[in-house]
Amino acid sequence: MAQSGWNSSPSELLKVGQRFVLADVDTSSTPGIRANKTAGEKILAKKGVELNDLQERLWAESRYGGTRSLLLVLQAMDTAGKGGILEHVMGAISPEGIRAYAFKKPTDEELAHDFLWRVRRQLPTPGVVGVFDRSHYEDVLIGRVRNLAEPGVIAHRYTQIKEFEQEIVANGTTIVKVMLHISEDEQGARLADRLERRDKQWKYNPGDLDERALWPQYQEAYELAVQKTSTADAPWFVVPADHKWYARIAVQRLLLDALRGMKLDWPQVDYDIEVEKARLRAG
Amino acid sequence: MAQSGWNSSPSELLKVGQRFVLADVDTSSTPGIRANKTAGEKILAKKGVELNDLQERLWAESRYGGTRSLLLVLQAMDTAGKGGILEHVMGAISPEGIRAYAFKKPTDEELAHDFLWRVRRQLPTPGVVGVFDRSHYEDVLIGRVRNLAEPGVIAHRYTQIKEFEQEIVANGTTIVKVMLHISEDEQGARLADRLERRDKQWKYNPGDLDERALWPQYQEAYELAVQKTSTADAPWFVVPADHKWYARIAVQRLLLDALRGMKLDWPQVDYDIEVEKARLRAG
Repeated sequence: MAQSGWNSSPSELLKVGQRFVLADVDTSSTPGIRANKTAGEKILAKKGVELNDLQERLWAESRYGGTRSLLLVLQAMDTAGKGGILEHVMGAISPEGIRAYAFKKPTDEELAHDFLWRVRRQLPTPGVVGVFDRSHYEDVLIGRVRNLAEPGVIAHRYTQIKEFEQEIVANGTTIVKVMLHISEDEQGARLADRLERRDKQWKYNPGDLDERALWPQYQEAYELAVQKTSTADAPWFVVPADHKWYARIAVQRLLLDALRGMKLDWPQVDYDIEVEKARLRAG
Repeated sequence: MAQSGWNSSPSELLKVGQRFVLADVDTSSTPGIRANKTAGEKILAKKGVELNDLQERLWAESRYGGTRSLLLVLQAMDTAGKGGILEHVMGAISPEGIRAYAFKKPTDEELAHDFLWRVRRQLPTPGVVGVFDRSHYEDVLIGRVRNLAEPGVIAHRYTQIKEFEQEIVANGTTIVKVMLHISEDEQGARLADRLERRDKQWKYNPGDLDERALWPQYQEAYELAVQKTSTADAPWFVVPADHKWYARIAVQRLLLDALRGMKLDWPQVDYDIEVEKARLRAG
């Protein structure tokens, strides 16, 4: 524990329970660790090696018929740091072992199907770590805030989502669901930064301020979503994200805990090693 | 140049011309640079930052309607280091910006179509760096060595491939084709290593030695393939790969040269920056 800097794991500290209240989470807190940006970067680099190693074992297992996979679901208000998690945390995993998918505004074809249809198509295959940059939760977030469906339809989606995720878990996918949680002020500062910097301006679009104007409604929708769908099999973790360094090592640790829990080992090979050594020498 | 260690670029030194002879390439050479493993790793880390930055610009361009993308085609004999290129070179790029795809033995569905069908489906979308771990070239490599199609059919594929790649290039994709080239002895040493190590044994399968027994036939098939399909628009580079550190920085440099050649800049945004700053302040 001393090595990794954590006093206790975010897997316990940040997990959403039944009486979860979003407003109780201090977005600028750093539960479980006393560190700073520099220390955080060291942990990120060091433990990134383990993350990549564990994914390789998962991949190796799949080459021998294993069906397990890992899925990280990332949800957050704009500027909360999803991109940074992908680049700095998930970037430690070799590109063939990871499959990141960004869900955008649904296309006409996607809208013609059930809201889970497009999500099913992007589920990770065996051995792979999938990352959803936004997800089916948009359908109970912006869907709710912007009244994109009848209230009864949206209310039913929480159940549909739980059943869907149960099915995924039963098929061998470990799910880690993360909400990156920033304050309204922090978002304001980050949007202002985007508008100042030529290398960031392209990330901004005027619609971002329209969503920002609905901050309380979004907070309510997030709270409802994580309360209603945080299950033992597919828990939600609300990660304070005003400090980027904290959010990154917290998500890294959530994934490490999930992978460690899978007891991954190199597969027993199905050929005779000594025979093959002899064949190679003879060749 | 001194900064990056290169005396001259592998984009020139390793490009396959019309009178290319594979046997003339010294697999243990390091054209264009005098360095070693330690220096190589430094270059890899330092220039990885630029690689990621250039990809982000490509991605930003695509958010503003740009259609350009980059495709790395990786071909090699077993153990030549494709996985290492993916992990250590391409790993510098953020997971959302890269799409790696490993082509395996074709499925029945894939065999029911033209050999380029499955390849088209994996082409990179705008803004993305695609990596083919094996590719349509298998159909003139193992396809030729193992007589998986009539000789006339295989002979025609070189033309089909050239036309296919021309079309891709015309659609905005820059193609970099790389053969990692190792010696037969080096492969023997690496296979022996795989058989020794518990964390590598899963990568080995007995069929690898059957292909190894056809080394000269594969060398001939590779030579033919790269000779016949190295064009100005979609050139082949044969990268000496006995030294992993060299192969990695050489491929990195090939990609950097390709991306630099695209003159990528941050897009001009289509909103009024000052208006948005005022809206944000007022909000």
